[in-house]
Amino acid sequence: MNELKERILNEGHVIGTDILKVDHFLNHQVDPVLMAHIGDEFAKHFKGKGITKVVTIESSGIAPALMTATALGVPMIILKKQPSKVLNERLYQTQVNSFTTGKNYDLCLSADVITSDDHVLIIDDFLADGEAVTGAIRLLRMVHSTVAGIGILIEKAFMPGHQKLKAQGYNVYSLVKIKSLEDGTVKFED
Amino acid sequence: MNELKERILNEGHVIGTDILKVDHFLNHQVDPVLMAHIGDEFAKHFKGKGITKVVTIESSGIAPALMTATALGVPMIILKKQPSKVLNERLYQTQVNSFTTGKNYDLCLSADVITSDDHVLIIDDFLADGEAVTGAIRLLRMVHSTVAGIGILIEKAFMPGHQKLKAQGYNVYSLVKIKSLEDGTVKFED
Repeated sequence: MNELKERILNEGHVIGTDILKVDHFLNHQVDPVLMAHIGDEFAKHFKGKGITKVVTIESSGIAPALMTATALGVPMIILKKQPSKVLNERLYQTQVNSFTTGKNYDLCLSADVITSDDHVLIIDDFLADGEAVTGAIRLLRMVHSTVAGIGILIEKAFMPGHQKLKAQGYNVYSLVKIKSLEDGTVKFED
Repeated sequence: MNELKERILNEGHVIGTDILKVDHFLNHQVDPVLMAHIGDEFAKHFKGKGITKVVTIESSGIAPALMTATALGVPMIILKKQPSKVLNERLYQTQVNSFTTGKNYDLCLSADVITSDDHVLIIDDFLADGEAVTGAIRLLRMVHSTVAGIGILIEKAFMPGHQKLKAQGYNVYSLVKIKSLEDGTVKFED
């Protein structure tokens, strides 16, 4: 997706050799117009897969996931990063290690909002080691739903996430694939 | 907003005398169509106030804030609940106590995304004791921006949040005002 590549080149900041900061249009400030284009692109790609729900992981995936759910005409589910005192009936949990913060967190899903009839599209902002998406898949399996596809905005293709998910047979579509972040420069695949 | 009242009556769950669970259409599962109607309603109400940015607090405010930003044609800013290793340059922080979890958290804003020229509309899902919105206002003052309005989806009118914000001169618009949650029943104002 050229629009997203251009925003990364113009507004992204590389930190070290593995972190790309996109706080100006995706993670802290969010551009609603870009999010709508991203939602349309995912909806176009996954059209015909019988998607009944879009699932994302709080909180940076929420904006693109909402626009994808809007374009597909289905509800969005937010997997919460920790149980609150409000969310606790029929709650499934799984532990995930965050690549960004290095910390563990619990990801939560209520069996009230996704069932075995659902065909789910997972949307997330970044794919690096695939830990967050793998955690989401574990939860979606616990409620016996079908993972029909995985849509990623920015894939770090030099990390093992995509290969791990592909090896398990998942349909992963990344809008942008980054080959390297070395020398403070973003290099895309192809 | 009658549509939101009906969803609360049909799908909300009251826990104790002060918690309203809206996990089926707002906090865990999110209805994109309802979010679009909410965004349109806030945009209509705050039109003409010169809003340049919509600000929300992660993560349940993101969906309605994004649709409000879409309707107003301005960017959205997500105030993060804790600093990550990615977000740290020119970062302002303030501590907030969560009514829902009873825990403290740090709310963060980068001076790169909001400046003294900005007229900000704060959007949040619930208004109870007003701690989260007050934390957002503290951060927005640190970067010398103007708080032009506060839009709330569900106000617990039996809690002091609205009065505290009104006493400071803020323009608070709540789509739904709840008078009481006693006896497991939602009673609206008016």
